[in-house]
Amino acid sequence: MIKVAVVGASGYTGVELLRILVNHPEVEICCVTSRQHEGLPISEVFPSLHGFCDLVCEVLDVASIAARVDVVFTALPHKSAMEVVPGFLAAGCKVIDLSADYRLKDQAVYEHWYQAHSSPELFAEAVYGLPELYRDQLTDARLIANPGCYPTSIILALAPLLKAGLIDPGSLIVDSKSGTSGAGRGVKQGTLYCEVNEGFKAYGIASHRHTPEIEQELANLTEEDISLSFTPHLLPINRGILSTCYAGLMQKKTTAELLELYYDFYADEVFVRVMPGNDLPNVAFVRGTNFCDVGLVSDQKTGRVIVVSAIDNLVKGAAGQAVQNMNVACGFAENQGLKIVPIFP
Amino acid sequence: MIKVAVVGASGYTGVELLRILVNHPEVEICCVTSRQHEGLPISEVFPSLHGFCDLVCEVLDVASIAARVDVVFTALPHKSAMEVVPGFLAAGCKVIDLSADYRLKDQAVYEHWYQAHSSPELFAEAVYGLPELYRDQLTDARLIANPGCYPTSIILALAPLLKAGLIDPGSLIVDSKSGTSGAGRGVKQGTLYCEVNEGFKAYGIASHRHTPEIEQELANLTEEDISLSFTPHLLPINRGILSTCYAGLMQKKTTAELLELYYDFYADEVFVRVMPGNDLPNVAFVRGTNFCDVGLVSDQKTGRVIVVSAIDNLVKGAAGQAVQNMNVACGFAENQGLKIVPIFP
Amino acid sequence: MIKVAVVGASGYTGVELLRILVNHPEVEICCVTSRQHEGLPISEVFPSLHGFCDLVCEVLDVASIAARVDVVFTALPHKSAMEVVPGFLAAGCKVIDLSADYRLKDQAVYEHWYQAHSSPELFAEAVYGLPELYRDQLTDARLIANPGCYPTSIILALAPLLKAGLIDPGSLIVDSKSGTSGAGRGVKQGTLYCEVNEGFKAYGIASHRHTPEIEQELANLTEEDISLSFTPHLLPINRGILSTCYAGLMQKKTTAELLELYYDFYADEVFVRVMPGNDLPNVAFVRGTNFCDVGLVSDQKTGRVIVVSAIDNLVKGAAGQAVQNMNVACGFAENQGLKIVPIFP
Amino acid sequence: MIKVAVVGASGYTGVELLRILVNHPEVEICCVTSRQHEGLPISEVFPSLHGFCDLVCEVLDVASIAARVDVVFTALPHKSAMEVVPGFLAAGCKVIDLSADYRLKDQAVYEHWYQAHSSPELFAEAVYGLPELYRDQLTDARLIANPGCYPTSIILALAPLLKAGLIDPGSLIVDSKSGTSGAGRGVKQGTLYCEVNEGFKAYGIASHRHTPEIEQELANLTEEDISLSFTPHLLPINRGILSTCYAGLMQKKTTAELLELYYDFYADEVFVRVMPGNDLPNVAFVRGTNFCDVGLVSDQKTGRVIVVSAIDNLVKGAAGQAVQNMNVACGFAENQGLKIVPIFP
Repeated sequence: MIKVAVVGASGYTGVELLRILVNHPEVEICCVTSRQHEGLPISEVFPSLHGFCDLVCEVLDVASIAARVDVVFTALPHKSAMEVVPGFLAAGCKVIDLSADYRLKDQAVYEHWYQAHSSPELFAEAVYGLPELYRDQLTDARLIANPGCYPTSIILALAPLLKAGLIDPGSLIVDSKSGTSGAGRGVKQGTLYCEVNEGFKAYGIASHRHTPEIEQELANLTEEDISLSFTPHLLPINRGILSTCYAGLMQKKTTAELLELYYDFYADEVFVRVMPGNDLPNVAFVRGTNFCDVGLVSDQKTGRVIVVSAIDNLVKGAAGQAVQNMNVACGFAENQGLKIVPIFP
Repeated sequence: MIKVAVVGASGYTGVELLRILVNHPEVEICCVTSRQHEGLPISEVFPSLHGFCDLVCEVLDVASIAARVDVVFTALPHKSAMEVVPGFLAAGCKVIDLSADYRLKDQAVYEHWYQAHSSPELFAEAVYGLPELYRDQLTDARLIANPGCYPTSIILALAPLLKAGLIDPGSLIVDSKSGTSGAGRGVKQGTLYCEVNEGFKAYGIASHRHTPEIEQELANLTEEDISLSFTPHLLPINRGILSTCYAGLMQKKTTAELLELYYDFYADEVFVRVMPGNDLPNVAFVRGTNFCDVGLVSDQKTGRVIVVSAIDNLVKGAAGQAVQNMNVACGFAENQGLKIVPIFP
Repeated sequence: MIKVAVVGASGYTGVELLRILVNHPEVEICCVTSRQHEGLPISEVFPSLHGFCDLVCEVLDVASIAARVDVVFTALPHKSAMEVVPGFLAAGCKVIDLSADYRLKDQAVYEHWYQAHSSPELFAEAVYGLPELYRDQLTDARLIANPGCYPTSIILALAPLLKAGLIDPGSLIVDSKSGTSGAGRGVKQGTLYCEVNEGFKAYGIASHRHTPEIEQELANLTEEDISLSFTPHLLPINRGILSTCYAGLMQKKTTAELLELYYDFYADEVFVRVMPGNDLPNVAFVRGTNFCDVGLVSDQKTGRVIVVSAIDNLVKGAAGQAVQNMNVACGFAENQGLKIVPIFP
Repeated sequence: MIKVAVVGASGYTGVELLRILVNHPEVEICCVTSRQHEGLPISEVFPSLHGFCDLVCEVLDVASIAARVDVVFTALPHKSAMEVVPGFLAAGCKVIDLSADYRLKDQAVYEHWYQAHSSPELFAEAVYGLPELYRDQLTDARLIANPGCYPTSIILALAPLLKAGLIDPGSLIVDSKSGTSGAGRGVKQGTLYCEVNEGFKAYGIASHRHTPEIEQELANLTEEDISLSFTPHLLPINRGILSTCYAGLMQKKTTAELLELYYDFYADEVFVRVMPGNDLPNVAFVRGTNFCDVGLVSDQKTGRVIVVSAIDNLVKGAAGQAVQNMNVACGFAENQGLKIVPIFP
């Protein structure tokens, strides 16, 4: 049994962490923070939590929190995270950071896409929290950089092909579509109901901040630099990311042969479901869960493979993966607290 | 540990039963039936179930199934249910019937609203499966008539007031709104995406088949016959029923006084959450769970009380309540397998 | 050909006024105002308008605008409207005010529900802009108080019954459901996509500000005071209001008899469509148009009539009705610019 | 003034044709056909049409219809169309066929993707109804093959680049997303509300029947064969297609330079709106209209251009383009009946 804090609990990632953690048999939630809702029970901020978690929101005080917990989930915006993470580490807590602040390994790249970083000395220690690729390093990690939602969906879709050297790294094009919860709970005109509903658009073409994170991790899987085209879109649904990935095959391979490769690659993974035959993923079938569903088609006509992956951006793309990382880092069964069946419809 | 069958597994109620039962620690699912999908794994019918339940759909054979299981959930349309329920009972199974076939106590009323009934002799034995009102009788029940979705939301909303004799039974008006999963998975033009999305309508005004069920159960709570106005509407959401109930108060009572009555009435109920203060239920905050959230306002100007309740029609309105009934009837903790946190957003 | 200004053009009512007015053969749009977007073409605020209206947003200057136009549509929040309406009138403009500021006839009632009023002397002159009831007075009106969206849907639903003295005014209960555009384009957490989508709730029970407006207008149709129960709900759709109205019949009348009454009452109305037979309105079938569709059922069992009406809250509930009022007040054909076919699906 | 028939009026394309045609000043609608709804007024099939078009549905009788009308819109499934089109032509009608039956020029290609064709002799005469590319040939056309929805969005997005020889034809990848009305009004489980809502998936990867149509038309714009990767997806919205197109640039060009090319190419086109600066299309801003909005980004990092286009699949992707074609073929102003402002929100 460990004690945890959820720092930044009033966003969608925060409430999702709580939804999962309240039923985790090895976890006691001891603290939730929210500047905006200080003094209010978190179950008034999110009536869904009534009876499950009625803790009162605190302001964020590193020393006070560190004295009470073993593991801290920081669900803060980038920049805010780096202001508190070193303090929690110094006080002896494990930190699972859901912001972008410790995901990139190259300070210059971080500072080009975000802003100046105040603790780049932690980059080397931070483990990129994708257990399917970094399980060994996560076992002893003090600081886990929880991956971005888009990167998770894309890296898992492409890892087997890149690792096997089957695709041309220069040919990668990824067209992703995300549900609106990915834009957070902050009030913005662009995420008002009437602006999103019955609409669909691309945004941040060739300029989205997840691009260097995706490129860093894909490059780690091969021996070449990666420069991909990445286009995110905004879907009128609450949850879910579907990534459609295009790559030129360097050898002729059938769909069946490529699926075989995926079955092997993910044979021991409890959270990656490779779709049988010609089935393709649908975000509806992973809703509320930590699964990444993957399907693919080898197109003989164009010599390309098209890989499609689906995740719930708030679970495998954020809170669920954070709990999976905690499980690995704390020695619990990897799917502890995460045996959730997708809710359909 | 008991063995169960889900008969009629390919509808939305069927998949919801499976979603809940696969994680129930006292249950082994031994059989799923679907005429349409005979021979197909249920996880191909519902890819959400991959890895959780990969049983192959059988055709419905009472003798064969009864030999293998202790409890049968019949998730069939009315009329189809009555064709198999007596056989399962005769073979020694407990039956939890999710159809309308055993909910009404008066054969003439049943046959007026539905059609001829082939086993009315079971009406006396069948227990109406609303544990909040009939827990004692459910303990030994062989045949449980799982309530309708609208009735569940309405009876729980009005029970405290009727029991306390505070409202005029002749004044009852209930305006209910249901998500589209309530219409089932059968293909009909009226439930196509483009017909429902961005639309909203009433249907079955003064003629919906749940009316006699609601009236029967409300009458049981008071000493008078009940004749209510009930208007269902179709909501463009997947899940959820919100019922807005209007009743004339026979004594002046403040909102606070009436809330007190509700807190007392439901003090020991784990699945009814009375909203604090002026909060009102939202179907979004019960999604995926067995909760019934209730809020109310006493309107001094008109002398009426307005009670609002929210449930997930597939859970407390169907599959979840069925499992709750099974828990009571089999002596398990009432919330076993149902400690689900609402998924929001 | 008249010259018009749309004051407060950057809200949903503003863009809807422009959508209708740009195709109105008798209208030239000369001015749009928006403090927030001063200097920006309105077609950058609303890309839907590209090529139709590329006027640059001005700040609101009464004198400058009054010098250029004949008719002013004020699409401002209440209180902001009263600050400019008297000036426009004094400068010789006709004003069609879409706020609540001139709808109520009783200053005390206004000030109880809203705040102090700075020009109550205009109450007597302001004509309530529901042409189906006040067409004669609108012909010469200088100041038209465009009705609220809920009141429009409710008054048109109940007028024939109240006028005919067929229902008990003390029995009125109205359960209304509105699309989210009714909450405006201002940024609020409550109207974020993820807060509204897949949700449904009541709000403002027994306390919504449209209540006195509805009661005032219904009382005008009968000889008694009206005190109704009015419950609004928030629908996860962009546009549309459906009102379900319950009233006790004072004489036995069949559905067919009551429909006959409605056909007669609305025989000459181009924007009220009484549904044939047992058909009931659906907001989907009035989308984008100035129609109010009405259907009803007489329930012999309870002695009540249930009337259902559907409008598009941004058209018959706001911008369309404002243009209809302009047409009447300026002597144009009443449906000029409003011969819009509903967009389905 | 011409007389027209809408053959196959009970689908979403049919009702959309009627929505547009009832307000067309040069058109009299004389006949609507629907086998399923024979004898029923079309306004009972689609209550949106009440008061606009109350014609009774006929069964399809070529001779009877041809005797009464000048132009026939065939809104039938492929194969059904070819059974009646030759008859209408022989009887002297102009035919605008919205099916796929006359779009392809190569019989072998048609028969590979569809089935045997009974009137391939008409292929040479049929004009592909994309006025932006084939206006001259449309002027005298007897038989117009109205383009598919996906092809329209893609061809208009890529035509300027291909015509200018700026992109590598072998590099084309198109990722398209369509609203659900594109799947038609036929009842299928896959388009039920609960199956589509809150879901998102790809389908028909590397195998969609629009592929050869797109390739044929793109090849016409360049001198090379085209073999593109085309992936359609199903969006949980009623209307709209967004196509995101990726192509390798053969010369370095900035976004501004490429936009200039587009402005020039479409300078005289009333229905193509090239977005200014960095703006990108959103299907919400073309809803209900015949516009194709186009935006683009030149990505220096990858050397690719990403072009995004948005149309309403039922208008520019079907009924609106059909009316535009009729206008061209009949000598009316090209935007007659199509001066519709997008409905937002």
